[in-house]
Amino acid sequence: MKKQIILTGDRPTGKLHLGHYAGSLAARVKLQEEYRQFVMIADTQALTDNAENPEKVRANILEVALDYLSVGIDPDKTTIFIQSLIPAIPELTMYFLNLVTWNRLKHNPTIKLEIQQKGYGEEIPAGFMIYPVNQAADITIFKANLVPVGEDQLPIMEQTIELVRKFNRIYKTDTLIEPKALIAPIARLPGTDGKLKMSKSLNNTINLSDSADEVVKKVKSMYTDPNHLRVEDPGKVEGNPVFTYLDAFATDKEKVAELKAHYQRGGLGDSIVKKYLLEVLLSLLDPIRKRREEWAKEPQEVMNILRKGTEIARHVADMTMQEVRKTMKIDYF
Amino acid sequence: MKKQIILTGDRPTGKLHLGHYAGSLAARVKLQEEYRQFVMIADTQALTDNAENPEKVRANILEVALDYLSVGIDPDKTTIFIQSLIPAIPELTMYFLNLVTWNRLKHNPTIKLEIQQKGYGEEIPAGFMIYPVNQAADITIFKANLVPVGEDQLPIMEQTIELVRKFNRIYKTDTLIEPKALIAPIARLPGTDGKLKMSKSLNNTINLSDSADEVVKKVKSMYTDPNHLRVEDPGKVEGNPVFTYLDAFATDKEKVAELKAHYQRGGLGDSIVKKYLLEVLLSLLDPIRKRREEWAKEPQEVMNILRKGTEIARHVADMTMQEVRKTMKIDYF
Repeated sequence: MKKQIILTGDRPTGKLHLGHYAGSLAARVKLQEEYRQFVMIADTQALTDNAENPEKVRANILEVALDYLSVGIDPDKTTIFIQSLIPAIPELTMYFLNLVTWNRLKHNPTIKLEIQQKGYGEEIPAGFMIYPVNQAADITIFKANLVPVGEDQLPIMEQTIELVRKFNRIYKTDTLIEPKALIAPIARLPGTDGKLKMSKSLNNTINLSDSADEVVKKVKSMYTDPNHLRVEDPGKVEGNPVFTYLDAFATDKEKVAELKAHYQRGGLGDSIVKKYLLEVLLSLLDPIRKRREEWAKEPQEVMNILRKGTEIARHVADMTMQEVRKTMKIDYF
Repeated sequence: MKKQIILTGDRPTGKLHLGHYAGSLAARVKLQEEYRQFVMIADTQALTDNAENPEKVRANILEVALDYLSVGIDPDKTTIFIQSLIPAIPELTMYFLNLVTWNRLKHNPTIKLEIQQKGYGEEIPAGFMIYPVNQAADITIFKANLVPVGEDQLPIMEQTIELVRKFNRIYKTDTLIEPKALIAPIARLPGTDGKLKMSKSLNNTINLSDSADEVVKKVKSMYTDPNHLRVEDPGKVEGNPVFTYLDAFATDKEKVAELKAHYQRGGLGDSIVKKYLLEVLLSLLDPIRKRREEWAKEPQEVMNILRKGTEIARHVADMTMQEVRKTMKIDYF
């Protein structure tokens, strides 16, 4: 049986962090064993709100690729590619744009929320408004069956499915595949400051590429229960990122349960819990950082991996585009 | 000195008619002698409001090409190509979309008018809303210096110039060229029914491919001055399409002036004027129709001309896209 296809990826706007690891990278390392996995470095999408700063996007292509390789995404099993080098994606996007109304785009809940968050007001770049259609093209040009997403991105999956159905109905075909969302078990890791989301712009991340010293420093200054003033006081586990991280990354679940109980009844100091968290994180991050350092010595080799992956991805996308053109009866020659 | 570049074209949604001839085709035949002229069969743009009817677009590619060849657009002097086969156009469109706001697109006067005319209401296809950006990409990817347009399309030229300036400013370059509008001397030919515009959808056209019998029939039933009931009555020349056509197509300007004066003072019957118009139109259309019949015997040859033109156009567009990528710092390999 043909392997099911997965499409996933990241915007190259910064180094990847523990939030990415928990939310998607760890899963990709497993998924590549059973699926035909495409991982896209979404530079075109990054440019929708970084048009004036392409250097940042460019510089982060290599960083993101290094992060991928260092966590164990294997280029022999996963096709890693650069979005802007797949011309079939903007082509299909243009055809999709004819199948969706302006109003429908405007009422996409993900977009509405992001417009607020980004503070665009009335000055919303048109490229930003249509990015769900662009994503629908990313997904369908690779005939992806599964797309790992967070809950907040479900409206984009709905938009994709709508477009696939409309395309297949109008052109009386089954060329395009309806993808399914693969909801991430950990959608969102809180920041070291306890805020809901770990995010570069909030300056509350632990990056996969951070040195051991940086990790020590960041964990030591992590937000915990602000009312847990004395060791003997009972402390809160909910909303305490130290415990959320332990839940996400510690393999000894029994020990985590014990620590939680002890913390809640009082008598367990933050520093002890943090010390254990550090152990857990460093044993996760040390090998990642070492592999990263090795790959970083060979940037040309990394770029070659991207070049080869991009060639494969382009070939697959071009094949789909040929079918799309045939279906649309615009295959003239 | 390098030849100046012209980009122009038509949506392949029907056979071309006298309105196209007067408004643009005749000019192209002259312009090709002095300029590097690209003529685009705009199938992608035709699909923005014909997404559910691609067969119509496909069928009209050949018809429009036949019209071009029959009026004397010479494929050795003019590059005739098919828009959807130039992937650099949607690519550049996507980057342009990041440089224009949603609001700006919404307030484009041409778009606003067309939305009314097409009766879209709230259900405006997103592809339609962004077509001025797509046109900006058409124009700039060929580095066109001149774009023949009607007055009503000036807002689209303004949008293009805005995008070129913004792109060149942000990316500190002069890669993209600011085009100039070349306003057509006859922007709009009235229909045979006297309505403002000759248009297939109004069923008031004289097509370049109409048989002599059809032309006779259409001219005989043409709208004239409705108050010119008896030959001896004075008649109106303004708003009388018979005279507008004579102005547009008769070479003997003196004779036209005499006929007008006679008609205005009374004593000149419609049938006499129409007879002269018929002479004028048939001497224009007969050779066009004959060349069309010759070319129509060789559809494969016509498609070969389009294939070759498209190859040339693709090469030129790809060269510009390479410069664009370099300028945007997304030329990774």
